Amino acid sequence: MTIKAYGAHAADLPLGSMDIARRAPGAHDVQIEIAYCGVCHSDLHQVRSEWAGTLYPCVPGHEIVGRVSAVGAHVSGFKPGDLVGVGCIVDSCQHCADCDAGLENYCDRMVGTYNGPTPDAPGHTLGGYSQRIVVHERYVLRIRHPEGQLAAVAPLLCAGITTYSPLRHWKVGPGHKVGIVGIGGLGHMGIKLAHAMGAHVVAFTTSESKRGAAKALGADEVVVSRNPGEMEAHAQSLDFILNTVAAPHDLNAFFALLKRDGTMTLVGAPATPHAAPDVFALIMKRRGLAGSMIGGIPETQEMLDFCAERGVVADIEMIRAEEINQAYERMLKGDVKYRFVIDIASLEPASRG
Amino acid sequence: MTIKAYGAHAADLPLGSMDIARRAPGAHDVQIEIAYCGVCHSDLHQVRSEWAGTLYPCVPGHEIVGRVSAVGAHVSGFKPGDLVGVGCIVDSCQHCADCDAGLENYCDRMVGTYNGPTPDAPGHTLGGYSQRIVVHERYVLRIRHPEGQLAAVAPLLCAGITTYSPLRHWKVGPGHKVGIVGIGGLGHMGIKLAHAMGAHVVAFTTSESKRGAAKALGADEVVVSRNPGEMEAHAQSLDFILNTVAAPHDLNAFFALLKRDGTMTLVGAPATPHAAPDVFALIMKRRGLAGSMIGGIPETQEMLDFCAERGVVADIEMIRAEEINQAYERMLKGDVKYRFVIDIASLEPASRG
Repeated sequence: MTIKAYGAHAADLPLGSMDIARRAPGAHDVQIEIAYCGVCHSDLHQVRSEWAGTLYPCVPGHEIVGRVSAVGAHVSGFKPGDLVGVGCIVDSCQHCADCDAGLENYCDRMVGTYNGPTPDAPGHTLGGYSQRIVVHERYVLRIRHPEGQLAAVAPLLCAGITTYSPLRHWKVGPGHKVGIVGIGGLGHMGIKLAHAMGAHVVAFTTSESKRGAAKALGADEVVVSRNPGEMEAHAQSLDFILNTVAAPHDLNAFFALLKRDGTMTLVGAPATPHAAPDVFALIMKRRGLAGSMIGGIPETQEMLDFCAERGVVADIEMIRAEEINQAYERMLKGDVKYRFVIDIASLEPASRG
Repeated sequence: MTIKAYGAHAADLPLGSMDIARRAPGAHDVQIEIAYCGVCHSDLHQVRSEWAGTLYPCVPGHEIVGRVSAVGAHVSGFKPGDLVGVGCIVDSCQHCADCDAGLENYCDRMVGTYNGPTPDAPGHTLGGYSQRIVVHERYVLRIRHPEGQLAAVAPLLCAGITTYSPLRHWKVGPGHKVGIVGIGGLGHMGIKLAHAMGAHVVAFTTSESKRGAAKALGADEVVVSRNPGEMEAHAQSLDFILNTVAAPHDLNAFFALLKRDGTMTLVGAPATPHAAPDVFALIMKRRGLAGSMIGGIPETQEMLDFCAERGVVADIEMIRAEEINQAYERMLKGDVKYRFVIDIASLEPASRG
């Protein structure tokens, strides 16, 4: 079946409308009519081939929400009409230790929602900037938010789980003082989620202008990290830091804020390296530096249910598909509060095959 | 009381014999006649003022073993004649969260066995290259090894606890595959202790010539880290890596060997920074980089008892005090298997005051 999508034919070309094919649903597949797709910074990196190995045509998008339109014969967990989501993962080996643990995100054969290997045409996966997607039921998430929140749920599928998973893994909760570094697409979800988990949240930003916004998102305190005095006031006081900033910056300034046994976890990989970490700062208080990548499927469902129960969604700005190139430019300037979401209804009607 | 010690009067002077004073034991003090003192790389850094703030005269030494000669009125845990040890710590605030947790090593007011603040003359602590030391009972360790092993027990007080503590903290035990990087004073203890804890031990060295020695110490496998093929054979297989190498080196080559959720812990701070860590390698498998510094007093006692039960001691080369300058030069070349220990009986008879 041919559907409309939005993507690029080369790294130096803008995104535009294109026709792509989706497979007919197999026995374990769920076919989803996409309603909204969030715009992640990874989309831009991939489509512009800023990471190695982009395959074209490239259709980005891994913050997908929509409604089931068909299911395969062996699918029992979903039926037509269900509100569902698809995140960054559409396949994995399904039998390694990681998959068995529900950590498909760490499977060596994890298949990304775009640019991953697939037997489907054109030989690599095509993402959610499109009218429809067909995904194995294992990788489909149930959405229990009210339908009116659907667009704002989309970013939970990547920005939400990418911040939720490390907050849970490092056991953030009541009585903890937690730092969230960066107040963008990921960081704004980090603030909301850490707050919803009951932690005392300190947001770190380089922008004086973001103080108010961070408080509105749920931060108990806001620190402008360029001000040494403000940083020092939190010395050795944080149990955990979630660092969402991918741009190279001084990690060491944040180590000093961790308590003994505190960890700072990075969820963004810089294009050029951060300065080397101060090993002495790690040794002196048994501190740690770690990384975390999205989350597994069971934890993604847990996150969606957690957010549905508490009314947590992303703060979004809705765009039409044809505005995506302009949205990328604004995203590069940090000019979005805090996530663009494409209204997939803005794509032309599909020429159904 | 004046006793003989071995130390230096300036950074550029060799160590030589000197007279120092020790306080009379207070109510909570234990007075110890030192039998042996291990030679730690830190001793050399401190006495040569390669770290900031060395105070002179400087008497190094924090791997101290000996026999109690007097105790204060309120000391109940020790009596004259007991075999005891003193490690890197001779005081701390005794009431912070770290001290309350028995982690005096992470107390902000921890007082090192040398170069730390003290009301005693000359105003800074003087270490174990000396005939006697007087220490608050809280920081004195009981030695349960046979007396014949006493000299080889000395290095447990720093090299032993520095490697034991992270192995315990990161829960190394049977069923774990553990890497020990570096086969020197610290690394040789790391191999022995990880082996004694029941782990499968992989030793990493840059020296082809150390293969046999590492096996003899208890390593199940030995990898020459300069050989990429040998390294690759262990990709994603290690639960934990204890990295004892302080010289700047490529940490990223070791991250690739860690399983998902594995941690590499550094116990040495390099004089110039390691290359920046590959954040992508951390993120892809939720790996961690951490630091650890010696260990608390209760854990040091636990380590000594663990070693006494299993007959674990350091491999040492005994020297006389006047050989210390030459021993430092050999230590810089890695020419010691694996720890020098000073026979304190080689100091001149004390001129007792």
